[in-house]
Amino acid sequence: MKNLKAVILNCSLKKSSEPSNTDALLKEFIQVFDSKHMKSEVIRVADYQVAYGISADMGDGDEWPKILDKIKHSDIVILASPVWLGEKSSISKKVLERLNGSSSETNEKGQPIFYNKAAGAVVTGNEDGAKNAAGDLIFGLAQLGFAIPPNPIAYWVGDAGPGPSYIEAKGYKNEFTLSNAQMASHNLIHFAEMLQKHPIPTEGNASEE
Amino acid sequence: MKNLKAVILNCSLKKSSEPSNTDALLKEFIQVFDSKHMKSEVIRVADYQVAYGISADMGDGDEWPKILDKIKHSDIVILASPVWLGEKSSISKKVLERLNGSSSETNEKGQPIFYNKAAGAVVTGNEDGAKNAAGDLIFGLAQLGFAIPPNPIAYWVGDAGPGPSYIEAKGYKNEFTLSNAQMASHNLIHFAEMLQKHPIPTEGNASEE
Amino acid sequence: MKNLKAVILNCSLKKSSEPSNTDALLKEFIQVFDSKHMKSEVIRVADYQVAYGISADMGDGDEWPKILDKIKHSDIVILASPVWLGEKSSISKKVLERLNGSSSETNEKGQPIFYNKAAGAVVTGNEDGAKNAAGDLIFGLAQLGFAIPPNPIAYWVGDAGPGPSYIEAKGYKNEFTLSNAQMASHNLIHFAEMLQKHPIPTEGNASEE
Amino acid sequence: MKNLKAVILNCSLKKSSEPSNTDALLKEFIQVFDSKHMKSEVIRVADYQVAYGISADMGDGDEWPKILDKIKHSDIVILASPVWLGEKSSISKKVLERLNGSSSETNEKGQPIFYNKAAGAVVTGNEDGAKNAAGDLIFGLAQLGFAIPPNPIAYWVGDAGPGPSYIEAKGYKNEFTLSNAQMASHNLIHFAEMLQKHPIPTEGNASEE
Repeated sequence: MKNLKAVILNCSLKKSSEPSNTDALLKEFIQVFDSKHMKSEVIRVADYQVAYGISADMGDGDEWPKILDKIKHSDIVILASPVWLGEKSSISKKVLERLNGSSSETNEKGQPIFYNKAAGAVVTGNEDGAKNAAGDLIFGLAQLGFAIPPNPIAYWVGDAGPGPSYIEAKGYKNEFTLSNAQMASHNLIHFAEMLQKHPIPTEGNASEE
Repeated sequence: MKNLKAVILNCSLKKSSEPSNTDALLKEFIQVFDSKHMKSEVIRVADYQVAYGISADMGDGDEWPKILDKIKHSDIVILASPVWLGEKSSISKKVLERLNGSSSETNEKGQPIFYNKAAGAVVTGNEDGAKNAAGDLIFGLAQLGFAIPPNPIAYWVGDAGPGPSYIEAKGYKNEFTLSNAQMASHNLIHFAEMLQKHPIPTEGNASEE
Repeated sequence: MKNLKAVILNCSLKKSSEPSNTDALLKEFIQVFDSKHMKSEVIRVADYQVAYGISADMGDGDEWPKILDKIKHSDIVILASPVWLGEKSSISKKVLERLNGSSSETNEKGQPIFYNKAAGAVVTGNEDGAKNAAGDLIFGLAQLGFAIPPNPIAYWVGDAGPGPSYIEAKGYKNEFTLSNAQMASHNLIHFAEMLQKHPIPTEGNASEE
Repeated sequence: MKNLKAVILNCSLKKSSEPSNTDALLKEFIQVFDSKHMKSEVIRVADYQVAYGISADMGDGDEWPKILDKIKHSDIVILASPVWLGEKSSISKKVLERLNGSSSETNEKGQPIFYNKAAGAVVTGNEDGAKNAAGDLIFGLAQLGFAIPPNPIAYWVGDAGPGPSYIEAKGYKNEFTLSNAQMASHNLIHFAEMLQKHPIPTEGNASEE
């Protein structure tokens, strides 16, 4: 069996020159991936010139194809987003739109190209909105052809109202959040392994061309 | 000017024989209404036999008409819901469905019957989901013909994961929640007064029959 | 390998004495299940006295335990809902709440009891709201421990505004809807088979008690 | 009374060099505004270099301040979005994030700066997702301080699955969509007029500084 690879898209509004609370929670996932000798990479989407639109390559300096290529070569994909106004970030929505631009591409068996990849979501915010954000991401990923394991998300938010975010609030001490990160990361690995050994049969889901 | 009246539908899954955390936050609203010598009433929807369906009276012992009558005679309507699985309660959704059953009824001017009433939402939960719940309620109310003032909601939730609810967690000490309750209750009154003095003109919104 | 079993919860607001448009679309799934010699059953939830609350058995004539038992003995679970006000039905939300009441129950390995079951969603309405409804159902199911295959939904809605529903509008001639029903039903079978042969390992997701 | 002004943010993913289906539906609004001798302007947000972030001016060539200035000087604000994957566009979410960056600015009375402005939403797509998109926009606007009149949205989508968009499908012949556009545009004017003559009193909503 070839080594599994995970790619994590951190859809923070900030570039990687600034610290991201979402990155801090992602470390829990990376530790698990490391412990399994898996390769994993966090991509700060805001570092790239990702164009708006619904196609795989919008041209004119569009850097999405670089990210898409990494997704195509990965077994696990995680979309990570901060919470703003109780919702996922605009950058995470742009990522869903760009993934949608590849929805008619198929693998050599005629299945959508995201088949046989496991996907999950990670969300942090200073307050309410994590499940709303995660739900949009998970449903978008499932529609696009990713497989969603049970308990596919981890999140942290503080109580109602303005307040400190994950790092400052020591969210990494929240047992619920940590236990979700364990469940999500391991279940993503379980599903990616299962799908590598037993790819999804084509009946019902493969186009003829 | 006649006295304003507020009706609050607490869509807790529990009957009024059990304490409701949402009720505790509603007290902040009632204090404001009292200070203005307004009448207000909290209806625990779970105490009533409210049938499923999309019409004003489903018959067969349906008690929705009792609640609907109170809504028709009120100037302010608040939908209040707990959070379950990051969403509003099933009872609050049933209330939206039943309100929808009156969406083609019109007032004497031919406008939908919920015109000239101001509406808001109140949500409590032990964790994440308040804005998702409140957003569904506010949008449903706006579609049905209620007027939505600015900052029309108040909510309290704890930080990520299982934990104590509003009363036990002393959510009533949360300044953000309290300040939202002040804004929402006063803005509901401001709008109800404005709509009583200056009802919405019929141009564009009245049916001819 | 034992025969797979599917249970479909039709969360229409109407009892089975009335025809359901959602039922009509569910027939596409049942044909596929039949072709694989699988057992499947459609439960019209409105026919049962399902209590409100968040526990496995609310007592006092609560009929949810009958439905829960069928879910426990099935390999595939489909939640089906009509669209009202652009959202899933109140009954489908009640089903999520009741499933949540079993979220701390574990199987003999210490995993949540819905592990190793595949789940999907089916939605019909006369107009807009299908993906919003389906997204809520899919995300709820994933949080509760079900596995979500790619393309896990089928839906039909007409264009914007009031109009005929699935049966009257001959939605069963909509190629997109039919092809989604094929994908969803087959992918649910593929995942149920995979999970039966290769149950999800316990690492990361099993409680110790 | 000074003349009312409307600003419409078309959050299409395309620049104005390409035709927008959402623009076509917006014409119904503009006709109504014209008939009242109101000024109105459609801004194609994709034409501007709008930075990511949560503040009024992100610097470094950020063109949001130009748009924000127009919003500040308008009485009616409409957010318009296409549907992608059953949701509002990433650009419309970016607009909400940027508006959020002004949420602590206040007018001369100490109220949030978007007070006394009426807001609505317009959505078009080739299929399902309009209410989900519109609901997010309406709730975001209400949280930010805009007033939401009854029936504040107009939308058009085709039936389930890929298909022609508004212009090609002659959505402008859909009576429901047109009647919603009449209701929404007139109710926005009714509320803007009411708020101009009777600004929202400060009790409960004004900060002291």
